[in-house]
Amino acid sequence: MNGAESLVHTLLLNGVNVCFTNPGTSEMHFVAALDRVPGMHCVLGLFEGVVTGAADGYYRMTDKPAATLLHCGPGLANGLANLHNARRAGSGVVNIPGDQATYHRPLDAPLTADTEGWARGVSAWVRTATSAKTVGADTSVAVQSARIGHGQISTLILPADTAWGEGGEIGPVLPAPARPTAAPQQVKDAAALLRRGEPTMLLLGGTALREQALADAHRIAAATGARLIAPGSNARTQRGRGRLPLDRVPYVVDQALKVLSGIKHMVLVGAVQPTAFFAYPNKPGYLTPPDCEIHVLARPEQDPAEALARLADELGAPRVAVPEVARAQNPGRGKPTLDAIAQTVAALIPENAIVVDESVTTGRAFFPATYGAAPHDWLQNCGGSIGYGPPVAVGAAVACPDRRVLALQADGSAMYTLQALWTQAREKLDVTTVIFSNRKYQILLGELANVGANPGRTALDMLDIGNPDLDWPKLAAGMGVEAARAESCEQLADLMAQSYRRKGPFLIELVM
Amino acid sequence: MNGAESLVHTLLLNGVNVCFTNPGTSEMHFVAALDRVPGMHCVLGLFEGVVTGAADGYYRMTDKPAATLLHCGPGLANGLANLHNARRAGSGVVNIPGDQATYHRPLDAPLTADTEGWARGVSAWVRTATSAKTVGADTSVAVQSARIGHGQISTLILPADTAWGEGGEIGPVLPAPARPTAAPQQVKDAAALLRRGEPTMLLLGGTALREQALADAHRIAAATGARLIAPGSNARTQRGRGRLPLDRVPYVVDQALKVLSGIKHMVLVGAVQPTAFFAYPNKPGYLTPPDCEIHVLARPEQDPAEALARLADELGAPRVAVPEVARAQNPGRGKPTLDAIAQTVAALIPENAIVVDESVTTGRAFFPATYGAAPHDWLQNCGGSIGYGPPVAVGAAVACPDRRVLALQADGSAMYTLQALWTQAREKLDVTTVIFSNRKYQILLGELANVGANPGRTALDMLDIGNPDLDWPKLAAGMGVEAARAESCEQLADLMAQSYRRKGPFLIELVM
Repeated sequence: MNGAESLVHTLLLNGVNVCFTNPGTSEMHFVAALDRVPGMHCVLGLFEGVVTGAADGYYRMTDKPAATLLHCGPGLANGLANLHNARRAGSGVVNIPGDQATYHRPLDAPLTADTEGWARGVSAWVRTATSAKTVGADTSVAVQSARIGHGQISTLILPADTAWGEGGEIGPVLPAPARPTAAPQQVKDAAALLRRGEPTMLLLGGTALREQALADAHRIAAATGARLIAPGSNARTQRGRGRLPLDRVPYVVDQALKVLSGIKHMVLVGAVQPTAFFAYPNKPGYLTPPDCEIHVLARPEQDPAEALARLADELGAPRVAVPEVARAQNPGRGKPTLDAIAQTVAALIPENAIVVDESVTTGRAFFPATYGAAPHDWLQNCGGSIGYGPPVAVGAAVACPDRRVLALQADGSAMYTLQALWTQAREKLDVTTVIFSNRKYQILLGELANVGANPGRTALDMLDIGNPDLDWPKLAAGMGVEAARAESCEQLADLMAQSYRRKGPFLIELVM
Repeated sequence: MNGAESLVHTLLLNGVNVCFTNPGTSEMHFVAALDRVPGMHCVLGLFEGVVTGAADGYYRMTDKPAATLLHCGPGLANGLANLHNARRAGSGVVNIPGDQATYHRPLDAPLTADTEGWARGVSAWVRTATSAKTVGADTSVAVQSARIGHGQISTLILPADTAWGEGGEIGPVLPAPARPTAAPQQVKDAAALLRRGEPTMLLLGGTALREQALADAHRIAAATGARLIAPGSNARTQRGRGRLPLDRVPYVVDQALKVLSGIKHMVLVGAVQPTAFFAYPNKPGYLTPPDCEIHVLARPEQDPAEALARLADELGAPRVAVPEVARAQNPGRGKPTLDAIAQTVAALIPENAIVVDESVTTGRAFFPATYGAAPHDWLQNCGGSIGYGPPVAVGAAVACPDRRVLALQADGSAMYTLQALWTQAREKLDVTTVIFSNRKYQILLGELANVGANPGRTALDMLDIGNPDLDWPKLAAGMGVEAARAESCEQLADLMAQSYRRKGPFLIELVM
């Protein structure tokens, strides 16, 4: 057994049975091992950002890490942006870049690069395998490490000779690390605070946004008068009919300050103190009022759902039904204004859908509009590096082959990882992508206005992605995905509904 | 004047007047400054790998650095692969990622990442600006640093507050650093060695591959009997009719060992000792014979062209005409076999073209077939990270608007940075792209065979990029580039010739 074979065996033994891949020469023994050791579901991406984003999406829907197979050095670099997003989402990934053979590295052949250095910025755990004999043991630890806290990125770098060398030994089955829980005192302190009745807000992040945890949070709010809110971006929120309608901290700083004004206490539940995404001249960095005290019920690595349940019991909070929100019955009509699009999306989210939201400026009204939609999971970009959407849709669809993925996607962002459409076609994934085609970096036009600039030709050109217009149906067809264009809400609604009745991916370009 | 304005003024004063951009929020003041300070030619890419690859191509054709404008953290990460290739090509780039404001960084907002850490792996010089007042001075040093040696990557990280802060001061005009030259003893030693008449080979890299340097190398070879060769991949080789036909060290290890067998002395002229691209079990890492002595006429950072001229004079080598090679008169016929494609390319390279070669396995016969083609520059991927071609074609075309760029492009590689086609359309660049559509990672099939594997379904699937087939004319049209498909050499030749008669980009998918 060579090192690569011991690696694949060990992954499978430790419950990792999906591998998103974009291999190169230094990974050929890994590829050969995937062939010889049955049981791994391998999914090819044509760009590394597709591979790493897919692993993120897979984790969000399964709470289980997938493996990646990346080419050495620059191959890893191409995957870093979506690893950054995965890290911010708390996703566990067993990230496996190949590398030059240990003895070849000193020769500084052309593709030699600082694989370890590049991995560190996104990884909680990095190890470069040193021999075929120990790759199996390294793999066991890599998988275990990817499961620490809610989940984190383990990078196991696999020099070619540690893959092809004989003497590989299958690594042990290591238990999934127990998830840390809130200390009794944390729960007691939070209960005491809430009993004081001062203006208090619970910020719910991570797995506190699953259905049961939200119900517990709602019990707490109903019993104490505390308000509930979620961070601006979240890995996975369970929402729609029968689930708690929950606002998020707005992205725009002035709006966020307004929403959080008057709060005297913020209790963090699997979340961190909310900050502005970026600094702006003469605006604060933290979004909570200066006199707001910050309390911690559960740190992000602690189990916030479990802490909420204990807190609700500690408070003796009775079970209460979550408020009902009427579902938008009808799609919007006519011209696709932001509100009409939101209404259309709300009416057409299918039962049990996975919504992958990278709608950016177009989607700011989607969230409140969809409280009453059919039950669904809503996935957001937690790291802010655009191009997360199409790959995460791949991973979510691989994770949940029985559910429809609805990818709500800004055009500018989609261009960073459009290669994911090909994987959707190859794997016949049930993904409906709606491209909001405003043909500009709309968010940046807003930011440029914030800067106080009166933009001229050069600046506008740098934010305009029309001229030439992207033709999304052609791009999709070029990668084997059927597609159509909509110019009205009625057309959008018809195409969305049609897409749900067929197998495989479909793309709709909504021209705005 | 704010920091960003001082930066743009200083770039222009120091001769940097092209900026390839893909901005985000933290760079809005930089964008606004590009607007307010006239004189910078700004070119937008829809993915950072396009931006950094374009800067590489621009440098190769001008020996002058361009600036990049990248988004913070993961934006830089998306550009690393082509910065890696640029570094290996010896290209100078003034690489400018934005970043979180200095005082916002400690808050660890979602897009905060290790910008400096990621930059180090590709940069010879990294600095994070600390105040608006000193950005101008930082910029002067960044430009000067990008010109050291043949060229290198300077990364100046621009936190948002150093861009928007007032008190900016334009930095000084710093002289381009003098290029180091070979020491007199290096030239004398090389001359003495060559006079011994033992089997000796000169390995010519970097600017030793320009027309005049090649003529000097040919004088030396004619006078001494030494053989000449080039590394496998080179930033820019001037070749075709009237220029020296020069072989390269083959990519395939066994072929390289054969070509270099019997050599007792290798003289490095702006090149490094050739290595295998990757290690393979039981094959050597260095490609020179074990008993071959390595000598250095000029290190890569020394001026190899100047050293060759001095060496030729030291040897009293008379001027000799370079050998003539007949030009392929007629394109290939019928089915696009590798030889027939090579013949077609050879017949149809236009006068004074810039050939950007990322043809990978399809193109292994192109080089010898084109010795007698019309004079042209031939650009290769020196770092081995695929996806270099379409962006480098952008940069070369921006650098040389009067010349036709012929991009010879493998399909698998093109997918990594296909967004470059949009920039070609927007800027109406005269780029003819030929996609060699074999619908697989052909090079990896060879590598898998090297591994000794008898590949099964899983392995073959990971190397097969058909199913579904990419439709390149649709992908190109989706980004505003006119395109057509060829299935025979005659069709290929017709389409190539047609493309030269029109302005702007054109793409040909050659189905193999």
